[in-house]
Parts: sequence; structure tokens; C-alpha cells
Amino acid sequence: MRKKIISARKFIKPSYSYLLEKKRDGGEFSDEEIRYIVDSILDEEMPEYQQAAFAMAVYFQGMSAQETAVFAEEMMLSGEVIDLTRITRPKIDKYSTGGVGDKTTLVLAPLAAAAGVVMPTMNGVDEEHVISNLDKLSAIPKFNPVLDLKGFKAQLKKVGCTFIQQDEEIAPVDSILYKMRLQTGTIPSLPLITGSVLSRKLAEGAEGLVIDVKWGNGSFIKDVEQAKQLARSITRVGRSMKRRCVALVTDMNQPLGDTVGTALELKEAIDLLKGEGPEDLQELVLKLGMEIVRLAGVAGSTLSAKQTVQRHLKDGSALEKFKEMVEAQGGDTSVIDDPDKFPTAKHIRKLPAPKRGYVHTINAGLIAEGVAKLAKKKNGKYDPAVGVSEIKKVGTQVKQGEPLMMIHYNDEAKMEEALEFLKTAYRLAPKRPNPPELIVERVA
Amino acid sequence: MRKKIISARKFIKPSYSYLLEKKRDGGEFSDEEIRYIVDSILDEEMPEYQQAAFAMAVYFQGMSAQETAVFAEEMMLSGEVIDLTRITRPKIDKYSTGGVGDKTTLVLAPLAAAAGVVMPTMNGVDEEHVISNLDKLSAIPKFNPVLDLKGFKAQLKKVGCTFIQQDEEIAPVDSILYKMRLQTGTIPSLPLITGSVLSRKLAEGAEGLVIDVKWGNGSFIKDVEQAKQLARSITRVGRSMKRRCVALVTDMNQPLGDTVGTALELKEAIDLLKGEGPEDLQELVLKLGMEIVRLAGVAGSTLSAKQTVQRHLKDGSALEKFKEMVEAQGGDTSVIDDPDKFPTAKHIRKLPAPKRGYVHTINAGLIAEGVAKLAKKKNGKYDPAVGVSEIKKVGTQVKQGEPLMMIHYNDEAKMEEALEFLKTAYRLAPKRPNPPELIVERVA
Repeated sequence: MRKKIISARKFIKPSYSYLLEKKRDGGEFSDEEIRYIVDSILDEEMPEYQQAAFAMAVYFQGMSAQETAVFAEEMMLSGEVIDLTRITRPKIDKYSTGGVGDKTTLVLAPLAAAAGVVMPTMNGVDEEHVISNLDKLSAIPKFNPVLDLKGFKAQLKKVGCTFIQQDEEIAPVDSILYKMRLQTGTIPSLPLITGSVLSRKLAEGAEGLVIDVKWGNGSFIKDVEQAKQLARSITRVGRSMKRRCVALVTDMNQPLGDTVGTALELKEAIDLLKGEGPEDLQELVLKLGMEIVRLAGVAGSTLSAKQTVQRHLKDGSALEKFKEMVEAQGGDTSVIDDPDKFPTAKHIRKLPAPKRGYVHTINAGLIAEGVAKLAKKKNGKYDPAVGVSEIKKVGTQVKQGEPLMMIHYNDEAKMEEALEFLKTAYRLAPKRPNPPELIVERVA
Repeated sequence: MRKKIISARKFIKPSYSYLLEKKRDGGEFSDEEIRYIVDSILDEEMPEYQQAAFAMAVYFQGMSAQETAVFAEEMMLSGEVIDLTRITRPKIDKYSTGGVGDKTTLVLAPLAAAAGVVMPTMNGVDEEHVISNLDKLSAIPKFNPVLDLKGFKAQLKKVGCTFIQQDEEIAPVDSILYKMRLQTGTIPSLPLITGSVLSRKLAEGAEGLVIDVKWGNGSFIKDVEQAKQLARSITRVGRSMKRRCVALVTDMNQPLGDTVGTALELKEAIDLLKGEGPEDLQELVLKLGMEIVRLAGVAGSTLSAKQTVQRHLKDGSALEKFKEMVEAQGGDTSVIDDPDKFPTAKHIRKLPAPKRGYVHTINAGLIAEGVAKLAKKKNGKYDPAVGVSEIKKVGTQVKQGEPLMMIHYNDEAKMEEALEFLKTAYRLAPKRPNPPELIVERVA
């Protein structure tokens, strides 16, 4: 299925070391050079050490919008590009850089589908550094996260959304490069992230893309300016690839919602699908949902977009669509009707506030690490029952000894280990801090 | 023979990606971290792609003097460190970053030996991008460039100098990294060059080192400021490794001397050993030779150093020592007594000046490439007979049609190919240019 990228017109292949020296010295690759690099990775002709040097040189010297667009396009073309033209409904995908406690995609995909928008989502490798949507859905008995491309298309046509593992035929060069980047300190490069996201998302058949770029201590982007730059980079390059793109830059300096875990997060997602649940997540679902329906052309104005989102939550059609999706993927929907059926932990204890005061800052990254210690099994899977809930958010006043969160655990030793992270995640102060701004910027 | 470097004291091994991120972000490695990296390369535990990312991150972020010193020391300790303490004479080595037409080491090693200074030189990999000293010596029938470590020591004790291939037990981590750097655009990194040179040269048993850092169009260092920085880096780090070091920054914006080739250069070296030959090379031999005898303590003052060098050239003892070295390594010394016995090319033709004027600039790199085209055989060896001679140097006045150089060749097609490079190497101008300064700076 993989395609030869190099065109027939005359291009004298340069040596890889020449290309590396060019980028090292701040040069701009020609379209042909970018295509040659991607093709050489696909054909396993460029050795891994030169791929690594390429990634590190790009980390330091960047790539122009033109280089990035060709890079994204060619990585997309390195594998299967899914043709969804037979589905006449608008096809909009959503991408998040990944956040702690983020359940929005679990809500937005069925919500969009209920509103007549197809969301051709696959779960990529990079969403795995926090508990992924598929990890969360694994708390549903018999849920099947693997569909072949035919099944993917059929379900999109019938249901409108899927939650599946990324097919290995999607942007294989990105998969190769991504694994290598993880090991070489070259993840946080704006053009490499841009190329990675767009090559995968657009190969999945989307006509438009809503991007949630998170910044803060729970994101791999710690700096708000960098997040804004990434938002601009993805939308600009996406547009040059003839796709509609909107990005929101959002806060990830505390967990989203009140829970972090597997079944615990899934229950919160079900609340959100009913139009209930924590305010910050309701707000984020609303704002991202509005972008999706507007980008799809389902809603014309801001007001109509807002009404569309709210209606599909209120009238139960989003929840119904979620159940339809779970059923289509073989899952037992009875847990959705009765969330008490989800596995629960043997023990629950509080994390007590060491003194009185206001929650001044929460390190969301430490909470994610704590929950990972609590939940991760030897086989790499997560224990669905454990996690944390009732997270006190920034700005909340607490008395000494009052719970900062509740810890759900099955194993005393793992809990002790997790506690070291969870404890240090909180900073209390005598004065009420300004709450962080949830949506920092909209880039269209 | 290789040694385990990590000491027994407590050091928690970090992940390689943590180390790469640290350097990427401009961090300074601890001594233990540097040792761990070098050890991991030696043990083949750090994958090549992470070595490449390490080299590229160091290219951009540099290393401190302390990091570089530990890096050089540990690379040295990664293999055999030759103990020459049984040889009581001073042991001084010479290193050049490599230049076109440079014959100085062929002269300086026997000259030093004649003056009672042992020069424990091995020919490393990085001197191979121009015709190496061993390539030139291969024009001597039966000359053997391979000695084991025992033979190396014995010849140093008896003769005082050697010309041999670097033993594979010398700084093996440097050999691994160097090959990888060649392919990844990471050669021109000052700390990596410093570590490479010092690890090898000091493993060869030298107590002191005279370094010739060349800058210009015939060197891989195109910028004089970078050459000065490298000179300072090597001398500073060398001193911190308790070795005496002096560096000269010298011109490589035209070939050294009047010839480039194999036998042609060897003949010029023999002239120099007789105190004859082109002025620029005589000057460079004198200046580098003076540094060697002063660093060795054989001469105390500048005047006495100058007299020492000149005496050993004039009285024939340097030439005698050269013959002694060739004989010790199995070579036929009769060609030295009668250089007409060297192989000569079938054809000689001139490169005519396209117009009258002064030689304004010569691209020494293009001349090296031209001679490589002329001389390189399919097996990678050089044809000893071919090359160029009577090179008109910068500032020389020429008439139209007058030879800019003489081309010695055996194969018409190779000559035509070489001509493309040689022609474009020259730029003539109506006014006499200022001649380039041969010795730009002395760093001690």
C-alpha cells in the first residue's frame, strides 16, 4: 500500500550528510529534498543515526512553513490516505497535545456525530504519555479498540465516530520518526510536532481539524508562548494543505475535572455527556464542540454553534451516540446506563491538606505520575479501578486535614509510592490566587 | 584490554533520553554523566541514534572546559594508554587539523627525533580527508605502515619516531564516535574535536602536544575565529589533563608548498629535510619545530630553539633520521638518496592562465579534490606518480597562457575530470593582493 514518493523528474540525490550539514547550518530544504528524506526513511535507506541527527538539527534550526507543509504531506503520503468521500457528512477531527484528566474527546466525538459531523479519530502514539482514551475505554467490558480500515470506514458511515488504535498503515514514516524522537530528546520541536499531527490526522480522512494545544505543568509544552506558536504552526500548515483548522490554546496547570484514572474518568465523561460534571470540562467541551460544529458548517454563527452543542447534550443524543459507538465496537453498554457497575477500588483514603489555606498551584504532571504509579500493572496496562477523585482545584480554600483529593487504591505499596508524587503536587498559600485562564487564545 | 570506566561509588544511571534532553537544553553534564556516556558507547549499550543525537546536541550547545576534559580523558581511558615512561627522552607529539600539500609532519618527526625528542605519532582517521602521510610514504617501496604496540614502543625507543596506522586499541570510543560524526554533520564541533584529538594523542604516550590548527578554504575550519577558538580549547583542556600544549593557527587558503600528490609531496619533504624547498613550508617547519624543541625542554630560548631546528636540517641529521625510520619500517631508502627513482607520471601538462594578472585567491579545497580525482584508484589507494607541481601561489604575477601549475597524470579521462576542479580553483586579478599571513596566532 505504501507509495513511492520521489517523482520522475530530475533530482540528483544528495548524500544524507550533506542534507544534515545544510539543516545544521540553518539552510532551507527544497521540496525534493524533504521528499527524499521522507522516502529514505520509509525505504529504510537512511540509517537511524542520521534520522536522529536530522531530528536534532531540526529541533535547533527549525523548518519553514513550506518545509513543514511538504514534510507533513509526504509523511501523510508515506502510507494509506483514507478516502471518506463516500461519506457525504462533514468530516472534522480533533487533536489534543495531551492533558491530565482530559476527557473531552470521549465527549466530543459522539457529540459531533450526534450533530451530523463525522470524526475519523484514531489514537496515535503520542497521546500515550498520559492515560489514553483507549485506556479509559478498556474499563468497559468487551470493548474492542482494533478495527481494520474497512471496519473503520463502515463504523464512521454508520455511527459517525470510532475509538481505535491508529492503523499501522497510517503515516508509517511518522511512526518510525516518532519512536526515535521519544528516545532522542526531539519531541518538543514545533515543525516536527506539526508534521506528525497533520500527517496522521489528515491521512485519517479529515477535511478539517480542531486542535487543543495545552500548556503548563501537565503538558509537554511548559511555556504558553511555545503553545501559541505550535497552534499557529499547525493551523497555518494545515491551511496550506487545504484543510480548515482552528486551534485553542488551553490551560494544563492543573488536572481537568475532578478525577484522574480509568473508570473514574470514564464516569466523569458520562456525566459530561449528560450535560453535567465539573465546570472546567463543561466549558472546554462547549468551546471545542462549538469549533467543531462551526468548522463543519453545521452551525453558522457562534450562537447557533452554542445551541447545537447544548441541545445534543441536553436531549441525550450525544450519550446515545456514545452507547452506539461502544456497542458497535463490541462493548457492554450496561455500564454506561449504570456506572456503579464499573470496577471500584478496595480502598479509598484522603490526601489531607497539611495546613489551612488556598490551593495555590497544582503540578498536574506529578498527579499524572502519581496515578501512573497507582494504576500501572506489570504488563503495562492500567488497573481500571484506581485513581484519584474529588480533586481540589486551584483557588479552593481548605482547612488543615481536609482532603485535597481522594485516593482509590488496591495495593498499599503502590499507594505509598504514589503518595510521594501526589503530596508534592500541591502548594497551599494564605491568599486566594487568581484562577488560571482556561482558554488562553483562539487561533484560526 | 578495554577498561571499565564507571567507578564503584554510587551513581544512579540516568536514561539516555534524559541526558540528551539535558544537553539539548544547555545543561552541563556531571563528570559521572560524561563517564557514563563514554562507557555506554564502549559497551555498545547506547544505540547509534542516541550517539548521533548526543553529537548534534553538543554541536549546538557545546561543552564546558570541565566536560570536555572529562570527555577526552574517558575516551582516552576507553582503550590502551601507552606507557612510554621507560623511554627517558621527552615525548612530544604533533597534531594538525589537516591541510592541502602539508608535508610538515614528515619533516618534523625525524627532525624532533634527531634533536632527542620522541614523537609517538599514529595516523588517525581524521587526517584521511586529504592525502595522508601514510599515503605519501606508500610511494616508498616496501614501506610498512603497520606496527603492533610492542613494535611501536621499540621503534620509538630506538629511532624516536614512527609513521604507522593508529592502533585499534587506541581510544576506541573516539573511533566509534568519529565514524558516526562523519555521517551526521557533527565533525565541526569544538568540544568534540578537542576530545577526539586529545584522547588519541595522549593515549599514544605524549607528555606534550604541538597543534597546528589550519583555517581557510583548504581546511574543514573555514573561519579564522573558529580556528582560534579550537586552538584555545585544545590547549586549555590539554593543560587541565596535565599535558603541555602549544597551538599555532596557520593559513590554509592555498596549498602549502609547490606540490600536491604522493611521490611529488614526498620529494618536497626530502628537500625540506635538507633545509631546502618552498619558503612557506620552510617557515612552517621552523616555527612548529621550534615549538616542539621548546616544549620538550631541549631548547630553552627562542634563539636556541631556532638554532636547534636549523642545525638538524643543515647537518643532515634530520634526513638521516628519516632514512633510519624508513629502514626500521622496512622501506627501501635508496629512493631517498635518489628521488628520481620515485614513480613518475606518463604525461605532464600545464594548467594555463586564462589571462594575465596576479594570482588573487586559490581554493585549496578544490585543488585537493582535483588531485583526488587524478590519483584515486578503484581500490581507494592513490596512484603514487600523479599530482600537481610548480603551483603558482597567491601574489604571483602570470602572463596569459603561462602555467598556473603542472599536472602529472597517467589517465586522460581522470585528468579531464580533475581539470574541472583545478581550473576553478584559481582567481586572477589585475592588482597584486596582500599575501595571506602564514601564522595567524600562537596559543600557549
